[in-house]
Amino acid sequence: MKFRTLEYQNGVLTLIDQRILPLQVEYLSYDSLEGVIFSIADMVVRGAPAIGAAAGYGFAIGIREIAQKGVVPTLEQAAEIKTKLDASRPTAVNLMWATQRMLDAYRKFAPETPEEAIAGMDREAQAIYDEDVASCKAISDNGASLVEEGFTILTHCNAGALATTAYGTAVGVITAAHDQGKKIRVYADETRPRLQGARLTSWELFHHGVPVTLISDSVAATLIRDKKIDMVVVGADRIAANGDTANKIGTFMLSAMCKWYNVPFYIAAPLSTIDFDIATGAEIEIETRSGEELRVIDGVRIALEEIPVFNPAFDVSPHENITAIITDRGIARPPYLQSLQALRKAR
Amino acid sequence: MKFRTLEYQNGVLTLIDQRILPLQVEYLSYDSLEGVIFSIADMVVRGAPAIGAAAGYGFAIGIREIAQKGVVPTLEQAAEIKTKLDASRPTAVNLMWATQRMLDAYRKFAPETPEEAIAGMDREAQAIYDEDVASCKAISDNGASLVEEGFTILTHCNAGALATTAYGTAVGVITAAHDQGKKIRVYADETRPRLQGARLTSWELFHHGVPVTLISDSVAATLIRDKKIDMVVVGADRIAANGDTANKIGTFMLSAMCKWYNVPFYIAAPLSTIDFDIATGAEIEIETRSGEELRVIDGVRIALEEIPVFNPAFDVSPHENITAIITDRGIARPPYLQSLQALRKAR
Repeated sequence: MKFRTLEYQNGVLTLIDQRILPLQVEYLSYDSLEGVIFSIADMVVRGAPAIGAAAGYGFAIGIREIAQKGVVPTLEQAAEIKTKLDASRPTAVNLMWATQRMLDAYRKFAPETPEEAIAGMDREAQAIYDEDVASCKAISDNGASLVEEGFTILTHCNAGALATTAYGTAVGVITAAHDQGKKIRVYADETRPRLQGARLTSWELFHHGVPVTLISDSVAATLIRDKKIDMVVVGADRIAANGDTANKIGTFMLSAMCKWYNVPFYIAAPLSTIDFDIATGAEIEIETRSGEELRVIDGVRIALEEIPVFNPAFDVSPHENITAIITDRGIARPPYLQSLQALRKAR
Repeated sequence: MKFRTLEYQNGVLTLIDQRILPLQVEYLSYDSLEGVIFSIADMVVRGAPAIGAAAGYGFAIGIREIAQKGVVPTLEQAAEIKTKLDASRPTAVNLMWATQRMLDAYRKFAPETPEEAIAGMDREAQAIYDEDVASCKAISDNGASLVEEGFTILTHCNAGALATTAYGTAVGVITAAHDQGKKIRVYADETRPRLQGARLTSWELFHHGVPVTLISDSVAATLIRDKKIDMVVVGADRIAANGDTANKIGTFMLSAMCKWYNVPFYIAAPLSTIDFDIATGAEIEIETRSGEELRVIDGVRIALEEIPVFNPAFDVSPHENITAIITDRGIARPPYLQSLQALRKAR
């Protein structure tokens, strides 16, 4: 079975409904700005690159809605489309980045007819999508070179095709190696509290035909200790200039275990994830999320509301625990301060 | 609010219903052997010492049911009571131990009247209960001496009053320190897959008035690294002669983090948990449980049934990661081969 995270054609954005995966595989189509805003706010689509691409298409659909009335949308109207989209998930950096790029393009493009406005914005949104596909493909191919025949790989959270436009990052490395004919096995951490590994990663890999085994997050440490894991590969939310990497809570523990038991630990992420303005991971602020994410699972309460909860979304793995950072521009090795800059300049 | 895990009076065993905690606090009473068998099989009562005590009372109730017909139960009938009780949870070592002790006592006691049979078995069951209360109290008091004013303590799974007759082991150490007036704070791991920390430990501590914060299992590593934890204390399922300790999956990771970041890591368990016939943890067989424990939470499916799951119930923390083993006979320090034997001989 093949699935598509998102697809756009003639003003219609079709998304796989990530709210009901893995139990149901359904696609929803949106042909209005309001519809796309809903799909982002309600997490029909999730994952930073996927949200960025959806927002780009949402912008194009917003322009189309006005242009189809026979007028060229004004810059004010275009800016309003961005404002509305940005409010759908206020903390999604990639969303703002995509809508800003669309608005800048609209300003530069300065269409003279409604048809030009529609075609121009469709092209720009498609470019955002295509660039992410190419970036994920490059990460996947670069990372696959590190995977050897017979490897057992562990991954955490979902850095898969569902979080991006296609392929994914960490999951892309795994599926690319599998597609090259390498016999590999994968352990997927369930990834509490939001269970992206149980719901998404194990589903993606299973349907790609990769032998995958789901484990609770607590099992990984013994597998690493007992040399049952040949490499760990995970995605990244933000990478500092020195290589310190913020990723889903639980990643630090994996990186520490790998360091101590001498198992390669890889980060897979586009070069755009590296924030060169941030010297070290200490400057990365960690989002703390609602305690109800732990206390309630799919509407089932497992802990009383009055029990205090500490629910950080991310943790930071120090650069010294990271064997290499796999990017779309190549593989960076320590010392990262130099190697990441080199990849940036080679751009 | 005070709760009682189990209570017995005149042929009636009353249990807190652990199947519906923490959402509902209800007590169920059983006055028949069949009722007690159901309560164990259906996990109304769980935790090795609590099951042992319930089984002792169940045996006494079984004897009473026959004796109340005006006859002295035969040894064959007594043996049949044991057989029935043992089948309620075939892997519970403590259950078999308790029913064997009851049967041996019945044989030795050789009652001559139905009244003697009832009174004798009630006494023996009460002795099992009382001894566990005393053992937990001793562990709690011994362990509390290691807790300093202002400590933040992390615990995993439920080694609390709900798993024992009273006080608990690891949780007993915490509540005893709190009752001594020490200002302490606790982080409770939710403990996937069965969520005993979310359901039971955080509930127990909250109702005892101990400031407790619930976390997902993945958070503990960063708290230990960042020196936000002054000590970790957990229970044990089985301890080898050299101190290697099998406990709930996830414990090894905590012990390793504590070792590397120099945080005291304590095991709290009765001396009876130490299996002196086992030289090292390598001889401890790890139970692998059903994948549905991960895939389904309280009837809600989070992963497809066809996704393979690896679900070990326990892991082994090597003795070199353990700062001390807190028992009912005193605190053992490395080297455990000597110190545990010394506690055993002092008995």
